[in-house]
Amino acid sequence: MQQDDVTITPETLDLLRRVSSATITTQLIKNHGLRSRSIRGVKPVDPSRAKFVGPAYTLRYVPAREDLSLGGKRPLTENPAQTAIDAIPAGSVMVIDMNGDTDVGALGDILIARLVFRGAAGVVADGGMRDIDPVRQMSLPVFCRGYGAPPSFASLLAVEAQSVIGCGGVLVIPGDIVVADADGVVVIPRYLADQVARNGDDQEQMEAWVRRKVDAGAPVGEAYPPNDHYLAEYKQWVAAGRPEAV
Amino acid sequence: MQQDDVTITPETLDLLRRVSSATITTQLIKNHGLRSRSIRGVKPVDPSRAKFVGPAYTLRYVPAREDLSLGGKRPLTENPAQTAIDAIPAGSVMVIDMNGDTDVGALGDILIARLVFRGAAGVVADGGMRDIDPVRQMSLPVFCRGYGAPPSFASLLAVEAQSVIGCGGVLVIPGDIVVADADGVVVIPRYLADQVARNGDDQEQMEAWVRRKVDAGAPVGEAYPPNDHYLAEYKQWVAAGRPEAV
Amino acid sequence: MQQDDVTITPETLDLLRRVSSATITTQLIKNHGLRSRSIRGVKPVDPSRAKFVGPAYTLRYVPAREDLSLGGKRPLTENPAQTAIDAIPAGSVMVIDMNGDTDVGALGDILIARLVFRGAAGVVADGGMRDIDPVRQMSLPVFCRGYGAPPSFASLLAVEAQSVIGCGGVLVIPGDIVVADADGVVVIPRYLADQVARNGDDQEQMEAWVRRKVDAGAPVGEAYPPNDHYLAEYKQWVAAGRPEAV
Amino acid sequence: MQQDDVTITPETLDLLRRVSSATITTQLIKNHGLRSRSIRGVKPVDPSRAKFVGPAYTLRYVPAREDLSLGGKRPLTENPAQTAIDAIPAGSVMVIDMNGDTDVGALGDILIARLVFRGAAGVVADGGMRDIDPVRQMSLPVFCRGYGAPPSFASLLAVEAQSVIGCGGVLVIPGDIVVADADGVVVIPRYLADQVARNGDDQEQMEAWVRRKVDAGAPVGEAYPPNDHYLAEYKQWVAAGRPEAV
Amino acid sequence: MQQDDVTITPETLDLLRRVSSATITTQLIKNHGLRSRSIRGVKPVDPSRAKFVGPAYTLRYVPAREDLSLGGKRPLTENPAQTAIDAIPAGSVMVIDMNGDTDVGALGDILIARLVFRGAAGVVADGGMRDIDPVRQMSLPVFCRGYGAPPSFASLLAVEAQSVIGCGGVLVIPGDIVVADADGVVVIPRYLADQVARNGDDQEQMEAWVRRKVDAGAPVGEAYPPNDHYLAEYKQWVAAGRPEAV
Amino acid sequence: MQQDDVTITPETLDLLRRVSSATITTQLIKNHGLRSRSIRGVKPVDPSRAKFVGPAYTLRYVPAREDLSLGGKRPLTENPAQTAIDAIPAGSVMVIDMNGDTDVGALGDILIARLVFRGAAGVVADGGMRDIDPVRQMSLPVFCRGYGAPPSFASLLAVEAQSVIGCGGVLVIPGDIVVADADGVVVIPRYLADQVARNGDDQEQMEAWVRRKVDAGAPVGEAYPPNDHYLAEYKQWVAAGRPEAV
Repeated sequence: MQQDDVTITPETLDLLRRVSSATITTQLIKNHGLRSRSIRGVKPVDPSRAKFVGPAYTLRYVPAREDLSLGGKRPLTENPAQTAIDAIPAGSVMVIDMNGDTDVGALGDILIARLVFRGAAGVVADGGMRDIDPVRQMSLPVFCRGYGAPPSFASLLAVEAQSVIGCGGVLVIPGDIVVADADGVVVIPRYLADQVARNGDDQEQMEAWVRRKVDAGAPVGEAYPPNDHYLAEYKQWVAAGRPEAV
Repeated sequence: MQQDDVTITPETLDLLRRVSSATITTQLIKNHGLRSRSIRGVKPVDPSRAKFVGPAYTLRYVPAREDLSLGGKRPLTENPAQTAIDAIPAGSVMVIDMNGDTDVGALGDILIARLVFRGAAGVVADGGMRDIDPVRQMSLPVFCRGYGAPPSFASLLAVEAQSVIGCGGVLVIPGDIVVADADGVVVIPRYLADQVARNGDDQEQMEAWVRRKVDAGAPVGEAYPPNDHYLAEYKQWVAAGRPEAV
Repeated sequence: MQQDDVTITPETLDLLRRVSSATITTQLIKNHGLRSRSIRGVKPVDPSRAKFVGPAYTLRYVPAREDLSLGGKRPLTENPAQTAIDAIPAGSVMVIDMNGDTDVGALGDILIARLVFRGAAGVVADGGMRDIDPVRQMSLPVFCRGYGAPPSFASLLAVEAQSVIGCGGVLVIPGDIVVADADGVVVIPRYLADQVARNGDDQEQMEAWVRRKVDAGAPVGEAYPPNDHYLAEYKQWVAAGRPEAV
Repeated sequence: MQQDDVTITPETLDLLRRVSSATITTQLIKNHGLRSRSIRGVKPVDPSRAKFVGPAYTLRYVPAREDLSLGGKRPLTENPAQTAIDAIPAGSVMVIDMNGDTDVGALGDILIARLVFRGAAGVVADGGMRDIDPVRQMSLPVFCRGYGAPPSFASLLAVEAQSVIGCGGVLVIPGDIVVADADGVVVIPRYLADQVARNGDDQEQMEAWVRRKVDAGAPVGEAYPPNDHYLAEYKQWVAAGRPEAV
Repeated sequence: MQQDDVTITPETLDLLRRVSSATITTQLIKNHGLRSRSIRGVKPVDPSRAKFVGPAYTLRYVPAREDLSLGGKRPLTENPAQTAIDAIPAGSVMVIDMNGDTDVGALGDILIARLVFRGAAGVVADGGMRDIDPVRQMSLPVFCRGYGAPPSFASLLAVEAQSVIGCGGVLVIPGDIVVADADGVVVIPRYLADQVARNGDDQEQMEAWVRRKVDAGAPVGEAYPPNDHYLAEYKQWVAAGRPEAV
Repeated sequence: MQQDDVTITPETLDLLRRVSSATITTQLIKNHGLRSRSIRGVKPVDPSRAKFVGPAYTLRYVPAREDLSLGGKRPLTENPAQTAIDAIPAGSVMVIDMNGDTDVGALGDILIARLVFRGAAGVVADGGMRDIDPVRQMSLPVFCRGYGAPPSFASLLAVEAQSVIGCGGVLVIPGDIVVADADGVVVIPRYLADQVARNGDDQEQMEAWVRRKVDAGAPVGEAYPPNDHYLAEYKQWVAAGRPEAV
């Protein structure tokens, strides 16, 4: 399964840094019929550091087998998790398929320190993380489903990087654009990123105007979405160069 | 199914603002045999703003059908959620039956801004909320089961306001008295609100006295609940006008 | 089932206070084949007060029967929870088997005040707690699965203290050594506590050195775990008396 | 929310009795974009009696409150479940929103005997049933999520019939067409029933032909869905009057 | 915690063999306020052999620790499961607290063969069983939550027999009377067994009469529960010696 | 990750057809420390046709994206599920990673008819199947987690065959030996198949002897596992050529 060969411009990434994950999901469902692009059940380790945008770099875990793990009778020599962490390009988001397992922590402070050094933009895993106290003090935003003190090999085995994965109910193809904030993490198909960024920005500008109207007493039944009256007023305001007062 | 025709006085509401949800549940089970009045699984968006009291104003969602939703082939024109939000009386608590769905956010910052304008006392939903960052900065306490970036129409449809609903395992009749704090949200049948408020206040006054005894070394086996000795001492202390030192 | 007759020295407890729960789980699985010693699903009430170490003092709850509870027709006179709380030795950790029930709160502020007075080191329950606001202001670290306003007797009955229990998927024998921090709670079989403490401390010293290497750009594929080159360098550094610069 | 004013002909119902629920879901998603019309988690009480078709007649339960239940202090006099069961038209399917509760049984043998007398076509509930042994000997197909010995009032309260409900994740509007078989229960929006019936029947005729090809050795990569070659052959066969041999 | 010192007569056990678990739960809630006496989530291995009645003989499992298990470094010599199975009195029901674990099978064909030899009346476990094919051919009714091929020591450890346990959400005191049939398993507090048996039998006799009325066309709104008219007719029928025709 | 290059002889497969999955899990844990080789939550579609043995042929699904599915805007042309089903070697077991999804059916009667034609030994999926009625009449044993009428593309996308997968909590490497019966499905690492088969057969022969002893009244505390006395008697019996009477 191939990723679309689409260049993502810095302008698109900049726009997406201004647009919320909530707006993006609205764009994806309303304009593209994509209902399931929000990763289920993940939360930021540090709620004050939840915002990031970048292309997905994927890692896939499967259940462990005791003899293949560290300390087992036939431990594997290769470790795709390490290789991926040493190879991730700057600006990328590591997206990890842990199949929902929160009994262990996939990454701890040393692996995340390496991601920081590599310039990764963020981490999303539908499973657990560990070394939470030191991780919380690092600059990398991390989303996960819970905290698990045991090392990943207690119940999981890393099998490959950069394959197509599922993460929290969402299909992730390497190179898809990942956007995270306090509401959660949404994954935009690469070929839609630019369109969603532009339309999302338009939507947010109108909603900021609507919010000010509602703060001032406009009923949502009239202003959100705007009826003909409010729509005309909004267009006038845009035509007038978006003056401070609405 | 009719609500009891009972007036709730400002005194009752004031008492309930002083009494914890923990105390209220104790009153409901011990004196009235009501074991299931605490809404399961909800948490405050802002733990420092979790306290509110008010009558329930209900809203009921059911699963969505793609053709009836925004962007579908036959979108509905009516929207009971909007109508309810524009109509909720000041001081009321919006209680939402989302059937536990956290894949979406029922309300975002614009709808909650409208609830703020209307003077709502709080929001409780057994599903997700969205636009969490701006919502956290608003004055309205909101309890929910999780955060969902997608709009409600991605998986839910609002069908009616002010009907009898279930929310987090609790029967809620419009007009029931909702009390929330850090422990969670409890729903008092309207006809019991005054009695529960008064007895709850009595219970808390005694427990404050017991707490000071326990802080000073009294065994809980003797002081909590108070045995005859401690009960006599407590009554003396009350008779003495509740002096500072216990 | 008997606990191993092993003395835990203050030195061991001191070492364990410096070692993370993540490191301890690694020791337990890698050196002793124990994969399931981390209590599933519990979180600290106050994330900034999550660290404690001490021997387990256990309490077991089972489902309630309405007639045996407070307010029922044949309420029990004995209450093993109270007896245990009045008897727990200073430095011990109360570990509670609630069978995962978060509909109620096992302990509230008065019972926890008593544990503070007794000098307990911490509380772990695989169920709910109540009176969260006052509890958060007390000095005792408390881990639980959620908050439940209703009193424990709404759905649970305490049956005995100091028996062998399961808590969040972990076998706990009274006297096992419990270690908690931000990642969660791990339970060390008493006979292994000293060995795990010493080896865990060694592991953490090496990992601190590795972390500085990784912060400086070392690939994890070479430095974590250290290959022959890094291992030699580490040993040199240790031999040199662990100088500040690495 | 109004049901579409569409007459369902006996021909449509007859066609739907021949078409499987699997085919219907394929039609609904492929031709109408409706992904969520299959009721989650329900199974037939008697797997050999799982097939039925009919318009939905809905019943809604919410969580119980002890004082309102049979045996409580203020038991309700009305019982919408009884009224609905005495009123259901012949040929209808009773669809019950129990919010997933399997701790109780909504209907037992007496209520189901009444449904048999009324000529109901089937029962679907996203919760429990009781009196399973006698129910299994009755002529009415019943789908449910489990068996619960306790009566419904132990945890549920019936609030209304013929409202819009959710059942096992599916929006059900009274009058929607319900089709059940061994695979489960699917709910067709009333306005689509005729179209789905006709296209579903076409699909099944072609798939029966494909199945015979596959039984004879045709690769599914060529025959299912049929490529140009197989499609031409199928059309020839249809044009030839569907002879016995394929 | 002591069991009530109450003798259960053979007459009571005989009555309970005629009364359904559904009727017993109705008696327990309506007359005694006991809502949670039905074991959650268990099913008979052989649905055609689901009926039994007898006093509870309890067994408690907790999570395993690898070193204590068969094949571990310090395997326990005692095995309370074996001791209990060799000691269970004829006519008793083994009730097992497995904490819901279906990853393993607590009992296989050899242990169940021993229970058959001992004359046990039945087995109920809120976890898994194994050797299902041979077990299905044995005469002992077994209820469980699922089938697990691995032996119990893969994740569980038996700690004691004849203690107070929870099983599927129900408090079970050794000696409580367990009644099972196709609807599930209900546990009657020993002191209520006789009363529940007698009143349950009365209830079933009236319901059999009601069922015949309903089969003949009586509306449930009038006949179930019987209104004054039907109640008078029923009493007449009873007074007439319960003639065949109703 | 490479499979071990080990030939599985017909003798090994024959032995494994005689040995139960319960015995195999005992061998794997007791002799090899492998605790998690039993696929969680799967059941046979036809309990009377549950036994099969064969090497694993794997298929991996991830969550769907609406635009890539049949009927979407950019449907994929390749379908790894079809390719795999057309290519599976005779005697192999198709093991499918559906990530637990039972909302859809991965395979229906046409795809399973193709597997029958190809001579597959069985199917195991940790998700749903469809067309259950015709499937039940086919000769292929199928294990799954539930039945889902909707086609797989309603929520899943097949991405590749013959990769390392997780299925119901078990690591499956193509070529691992899969053994199924009424208790469930166990996956033996290829390099252990022969050893497990031989030792499992030995274990079952002894257990058959033990079972006859227990049927005749031997306490399990003495005979299972056999103490020195019984062990000596068993060895004598074996030495005597295993005569009919024990």
